[in-house]
Amino acid sequence: MNKVLKAILPKGFKANGIFCGLKKSGKEDLALLYSEFPALGSARFTTNSIIAAPLVVSKMHLRSAKKFQAVVVNSGNANCFTGKLGIKDALSTTEFVAAQLGVPVKSVLVNSTGIIGKRLNIAKIKQGVPKLVSGLSASGIHRAVKAIMTTDTFAKEITLSLKIGGKLVNICGIAKGAGMIAPDMATMLCFIMTDAAINQKTLDRVLGGAVDKSFNCISVDGCMSTNDTVLILANGAAGNKLIISGDDLREFIKALETVCLELAKMVILDAEGATKFIQIDVVQAKNYLEAKKVALNIANSVLFKTAVFGENPNFGRVAAAVGATGLKINENQLKIKLGSLKGKQVKLQVGLSRGKSRCTVFTSDLSPEYIKINAEYN
Amino acid sequence: MNKVLKAILPKGFKANGIFCGLKKSGKEDLALLYSEFPALGSARFTTNSIIAAPLVVSKMHLRSAKKFQAVVVNSGNANCFTGKLGIKDALSTTEFVAAQLGVPVKSVLVNSTGIIGKRLNIAKIKQGVPKLVSGLSASGIHRAVKAIMTTDTFAKEITLSLKIGGKLVNICGIAKGAGMIAPDMATMLCFIMTDAAINQKTLDRVLGGAVDKSFNCISVDGCMSTNDTVLILANGAAGNKLIISGDDLREFIKALETVCLELAKMVILDAEGATKFIQIDVVQAKNYLEAKKVALNIANSVLFKTAVFGENPNFGRVAAAVGATGLKINENQLKIKLGSLKGKQVKLQVGLSRGKSRCTVFTSDLSPEYIKINAEYN
Repeated sequence: MNKVLKAILPKGFKANGIFCGLKKSGKEDLALLYSEFPALGSARFTTNSIIAAPLVVSKMHLRSAKKFQAVVVNSGNANCFTGKLGIKDALSTTEFVAAQLGVPVKSVLVNSTGIIGKRLNIAKIKQGVPKLVSGLSASGIHRAVKAIMTTDTFAKEITLSLKIGGKLVNICGIAKGAGMIAPDMATMLCFIMTDAAINQKTLDRVLGGAVDKSFNCISVDGCMSTNDTVLILANGAAGNKLIISGDDLREFIKALETVCLELAKMVILDAEGATKFIQIDVVQAKNYLEAKKVALNIANSVLFKTAVFGENPNFGRVAAAVGATGLKINENQLKIKLGSLKGKQVKLQVGLSRGKSRCTVFTSDLSPEYIKINAEYN
Repeated sequence: MNKVLKAILPKGFKANGIFCGLKKSGKEDLALLYSEFPALGSARFTTNSIIAAPLVVSKMHLRSAKKFQAVVVNSGNANCFTGKLGIKDALSTTEFVAAQLGVPVKSVLVNSTGIIGKRLNIAKIKQGVPKLVSGLSASGIHRAVKAIMTTDTFAKEITLSLKIGGKLVNICGIAKGAGMIAPDMATMLCFIMTDAAINQKTLDRVLGGAVDKSFNCISVDGCMSTNDTVLILANGAAGNKLIISGDDLREFIKALETVCLELAKMVILDAEGATKFIQIDVVQAKNYLEAKKVALNIANSVLFKTAVFGENPNFGRVAAAVGATGLKINENQLKIKLGSLKGKQVKLQVGLSRGKSRCTVFTSDLSPEYIKINAEYN
């Protein structure tokens, strides 16, 4: 398996990113990912019951169509909490793109990231789409990555290549920002493109598994976004024998998990105000879910995160966070190992003496800078 | 009903507070509340499964004895995560006090607040007890309030008087600090003394109800402490007819709820780093528990609290916090009214369009000062 921390589009994919007028900064704010061949699509969305308009439209398209050719994404506005007009705007966006590409409307998926509760400037998007489509190219992925960023300080991209039945298969993933990461900004987005040939059922299953072990194992502030999306398109252009089981499937799962985990870690590395990258390993749990619950509760403890920021090895706050899950555990069973807090990387291991399961979760510390950013400090 | 924001001991109670050597500051760190008459006792403790040693001992005494005469409390050390030695120390503390007072060991309850994970200096406590007991007086409650404080900036005290069956009944409550409120410090403690005559079953029930509507409706940082305690002693010295039902019970409940709610609000007013006192009213819920879940989820949203600190009216963050509870609600049903953010007092009302139940929760904003305090900043 070959891995590079750079986006290289798999066979049959093109991309582009332009400035259409949504961001005040004048930076790229409209991205398009395009597959020349109709591709299978699978996605995991936020479980927040207030969901953004583009997710409503994308879910509708994912239910009613079997193949997809494009994903259009704007930054600068999350198009969330915008009512029926918001849904109309999201749908219009897919219509503009579909018309320009000459593909069915339902084959176009849509996403947004940025401020919540303000209406999208749909005229600017309409105006931008012809340029967006005409500029599509294999190298356009670099502009697309920029166009989905809000306050991210670096682009999050990765490409993996692996051999499946003698054929070269590529998986390219791009992602943006951790949780609700800046003044009024929302959303963690991840788009993965692969030329692998795979069936729908398997694709759904392996994406779910990879997301659970990666994006569902990170937390910046415990705040669930209304736009979170992980979307994969698989267009089969690699020409491999359909991935169904055995070594092929195992290899593909391993590669997809790597893509998701690496991108998830980049999201944490770029968490706003963060000075530390914290790995929390909960071991000796009765089962995986118990380990994950404990790990996430520590990761979301404001006091633990603040202690790490202060390089203050506070075991009591870890113990309190474990106990707050309601897990029946006494303090003699609890083994807490906290590595040095001096560097950028911090490791915490918590042993529960209850079984053999484990889970690893990644988080960042909580700094005054986080507050300043999110309070719209001057 | 007469209310003063000052501690005035009910009939038959005495108190004292001294410096015994636990606090580096040299301020009062050992408190004693004493009832001349054996009193009924009832308590609500933290639901954290890691609980502090004095709570283990107090729970044991509450189970095995029927009447109580003293509560001894130290600040400067939480005696939590301290193993069997911690339990031995807590028990020794009750033994010293019992011997000096000439009362049964099981009639003495014990509590601690301060740093987690360090052994208590039991020698200092032993040395301090004779002075603590000999100085007991009706006016000593003011020293006792000081002795349970850690980084609280003001004493939290209240006294209510009411007539029950023609007799004057008094309820006096004192409390300390919000959640885990300072560097390595833990614990919200509340002690209530009343001279009311009431039976055990009724006392347990009314305390539970009052706590649910007050202390269980506040949050500073969503971090559950290992020492949280609300304890009431009722010694019957008022000579009223036993409170069992009817108007007497209703009046007593109302008074006890007022004591708990006022003290809970003071805890929020004194939350570390706080610049705002936020009242969150969730209305039109299907039931009380649903309203409370939504209100607490908003109160614990780091992003909402940060927005309030920044005086930034961010409705999207409120909507996201509501949706994150998993409540099946669409955005058209959700009515968010956020008052002015300019003053110290902020009011948020959230309507769910689902029913007629409501819940009010109190919280504070999240400021860089909170981080500084809890990171042990210099």
